[in-house]
Amino acid sequence: MLTRRTIKFVHSLAQKKYRDDSLCFVAEGRKLVYDLLAAGMKAEGLYATDDFLASLPASLLPASTAVHPCTVAELAALSALASPPKGGGAICVFHQRPLVSVTATEAIGNTLSIALDGVQDPGNLGTIIRTADWFGIHRIFASHETADVYSPKVVQSTMGALARVEVIYTDLPSFISSLPESTPVYGTFLDGDNCYTAPIERPEAGLLVMGNEGNGISAQVADGVTHRLYIPPFPDSSCGSESLNVASATAILCAELRRRIRAK
Amino acid sequence: MLTRRTIKFVHSLAQKKYRDDSLCFVAEGRKLVYDLLAAGMKAEGLYATDDFLASLPASLLPASTAVHPCTVAELAALSALASPPKGGGAICVFHQRPLVSVTATEAIGNTLSIALDGVQDPGNLGTIIRTADWFGIHRIFASHETADVYSPKVVQSTMGALARVEVIYTDLPSFISSLPESTPVYGTFLDGDNCYTAPIERPEAGLLVMGNEGNGISAQVADGVTHRLYIPPFPDSSCGSESLNVASATAILCAELRRRIRAK
Repeated sequence: MLTRRTIKFVHSLAQKKYRDDSLCFVAEGRKLVYDLLAAGMKAEGLYATDDFLASLPASLLPASTAVHPCTVAELAALSALASPPKGGGAICVFHQRPLVSVTATEAIGNTLSIALDGVQDPGNLGTIIRTADWFGIHRIFASHETADVYSPKVVQSTMGALARVEVIYTDLPSFISSLPESTPVYGTFLDGDNCYTAPIERPEAGLLVMGNEGNGISAQVADGVTHRLYIPPFPDSSCGSESLNVASATAILCAELRRRIRAK
Repeated sequence: MLTRRTIKFVHSLAQKKYRDDSLCFVAEGRKLVYDLLAAGMKAEGLYATDDFLASLPASLLPASTAVHPCTVAELAALSALASPPKGGGAICVFHQRPLVSVTATEAIGNTLSIALDGVQDPGNLGTIIRTADWFGIHRIFASHETADVYSPKVVQSTMGALARVEVIYTDLPSFISSLPESTPVYGTFLDGDNCYTAPIERPEAGLLVMGNEGNGISAQVADGVTHRLYIPPFPDSSCGSESLNVASATAILCAELRRRIRAK
């Protein structure tokens, strides 16, 4: 039986201030909850039907005090989503990832990371996390104006990639200025170089900066960009859209940087 | 002054059955309404603030009987969106594009088109239309299971690209089977060939098929695919996401086909 207090707590996590207080977030749906448990995310409370619980390998089952068998109706009452995922079965309150303090250089290392300069749409953020996961990018550095990674819309649209990609909120201009000069910082601009032909010495490393949906990359962040790129429309003199959706542009640039490694 | 009947009509267009009856759809926001008027879309009724109307070149102003100056409060009452676009200013009822009857061969010609096999999320459809526009793709053939291009969410997320990209609903398996054998039909499959190295003789032509968010390309449509492709994850043996978001995958493949033309 779910208490009113539990229902109230789970619903409260739809709001950022309660997520910030409790350092928890909610994930809904069998596949998502399974993927996050399988990735080792720590469950505070797992609310699920008996058949979902029976389907979980013992190694993924949280401590028994955190497991709450529920009926389908109870899960429906617990859901905070306008359209709960089909098949229902599980809602889980997870602990947010603990914050770790590392220098910018350590955080980037010799790998490729993404920086988001005010991406505000939760669906775009979720899609970018999924793209990062596909292309083996494990860290996303987000400005404080970027959507909250633990908001229900973001969590649901990552399709589990959230478990494998870390999103770290930071002051982006100072973060970038603290990187060694040798770290390539890529960004897209209308006057940038064709991303397919621009010289890129180390496509395997650096920071790919993506800007806000309406305004692109802010002036302060643009100062730190070392490689100004552009995704050419087709034909070159296209009089069509002024821009691509930011998640689509991120996908194209990640794909291109990964293609370059293989083409070397 | 807006009549209750007008408000009721505009609101009714959020539902497909009323759009199908009236063959109209609604677009909201200064930029979107401007872009659609500029593209020659025919307005049935333009509801806008005086400053928006004054900013329109005379050539874009609809017939005076279709122009209805409104206050900001009237526009707010007319809006059917949960979050109306910032800056408001204009809501316009447009006529849907007239349906034209052409053969599959005529419809495709020697250009690249996209086919959508059950893409159900309106945001994904809108983003794909915007991507198509960026890459000079003017026609999208959509199965009847695909989201409705005139639904408010799709219209808003196309950012005006709707004016330049035609979406044609059709029975996709028969459409594909009526294409000449020489027309390349591209599709993505987990066992497809690396899209960066697979031989593609005529990247400028053919049909790029994208599948449903959960199930991919249906068996019937897959039968017609001549080039089975795959977007390689990184590293190759990635144990991350099982798939990319369909709009992200579309962006990567359109970009790659366009890159191939330039690389020839």
